[in-house]
Amino acid sequence: MAFQNICAKITDAFYLITHKRITADQDVNDVLLKTITFMPTHLLPTLIDDAFWKKLDKQDYMRVATFMAEKSYNEGGCPIGAVIVCRDTGRILGKGHNRLVQDNDPTVHGETAAIKDAGRIHFSNTDIYTTLTPCYDMCRPTINRLGFASVYIGYDLHGANKASEDWLKEQNIHVEIIPDQKYIDIYDRFCREKPHLNHEDWKNLTEADKEFGSAEH
Amino acid sequence: MAFQNICAKITDAFYLITHKRITADQDVNDVLLKTITFMPTHLLPTLIDDAFWKKLDKQDYMRVATFMAEKSYNEGGCPIGAVIVCRDTGRILGKGHNRLVQDNDPTVHGETAAIKDAGRIHFSNTDIYTTLTPCYDMCRPTINRLGFASVYIGYDLHGANKASEDWLKEQNIHVEIIPDQKYIDIYDRFCREKPHLNHEDWKNLTEADKEFGSAEH
Ligand SMILES: [Zn+2]
Ligand SMILES: [Zn+2]
Repeated sequence: MAFQNICAKITDAFYLITHKRITADQDVNDVLLKTITFMPTHLLPTLIDDAFWKKLDKQDYMRVATFMAEKSYNEGGCPIGAVIVCRDTGRILGKGHNRLVQDNDPTVHGETAAIKDAGRIHFSNTDIYTTLTPCYDMCRPTINRLGFASVYIGYDLHGANKASEDWLKEQNIHVEIIPDQKYIDIYDRFCREKPHLNHEDWKNLTEADKEFGSAEH
Repeated sequence: MAFQNICAKITDAFYLITHKRITADQDVNDVLLKTITFMPTHLLPTLIDDAFWKKLDKQDYMRVATFMAEKSYNEGGCPIGAVIVCRDTGRILGKGHNRLVQDNDPTVHGETAAIKDAGRIHFSNTDIYTTLTPCYDMCRPTINRLGFASVYIGYDLHGANKASEDWLKEQNIHVEIIPDQKYIDIYDRFCREKPHLNHEDWKNLTEADKEFGSAEH
């Protein structure tokens, strides 16, 4: 463990030396948001000026979630990403994507991955951005349990998930759709290409086999 | 990754050489169940004869879940454990315990830890043993999503969680209380010793601070 800690500190130092600090005078654009997506979350306070965060709007945070989803798609996984943002500072405190395929783990959705990344914090002072409406049977109640202030959703399947969003509102959680067309295209493509995997992800393997046969798995 | 794989295989080989195989002529007792608790799950089919599993009853599986919970208690974490069992073979396919403290992760409860350990399998052909009634806001719906056949519960807080158990039954999941006094003692002690941590675990940090002040955290 001590050895691992030393290795982690060397990696961090190397990262900090080789990456230029992001300051408030830089323009917010996709290249910069993608850079932030791939930065280790725990180094963000060191790598990014506090004033820079104030320049980001909801669409920008959703784009980071989209880049997370795109990363997962490129890895052969389910493209769902999420970002957790501090309501006071605008800092990203957690980010992640679905890891069903990557970790062989049905409990790591975009939202739970971002929560893991954030750790044991006061989620009541944060908002969560998720590219897709949180699943009924795990992420939605988890978001409620942890007491998030707001849920921003990139794709609500053209209104098909309205009941789920209404339920969150009834729990006094602010809910808003922040559509990201780049994400909508990625997710629709994924559903066409891997319907079995998509079904396994939001339901389970048995139901996916029933619906699509067990060949694809 | 290749290097990690080789290391993992060497570790497995070492484990298999140094551990005696468990056969059907051995008596089922706490010493043996504790040994199984600490064995790597993926090696169980190699380390344990298929005929041995047939000797285990519900109380034995619950005891393994209890030993998992005890391990977490000894690590300073929340003592909740879970075990996933194949309905055909009686093999343990997944086991784990709450890791809120150990992994700094509010999404790893006993049940989700055991699911992670089992990976992408057909949960519809498995039963889950959990030392405590699954939490309303994460594990209960997750168990429903993944389609477990049965939920066996070691401690229902003297009937206080009946509504939660009734809900599972309404989803056509078999529910049964398999009390384990050893577990009940561990959990009650934990609640007396660390009420703040317990509250953070089943709800969240903000609510725990409201209830008990932020000192203990
Ligand atoms: Zn989900
Ligand atoms: Zn739980």
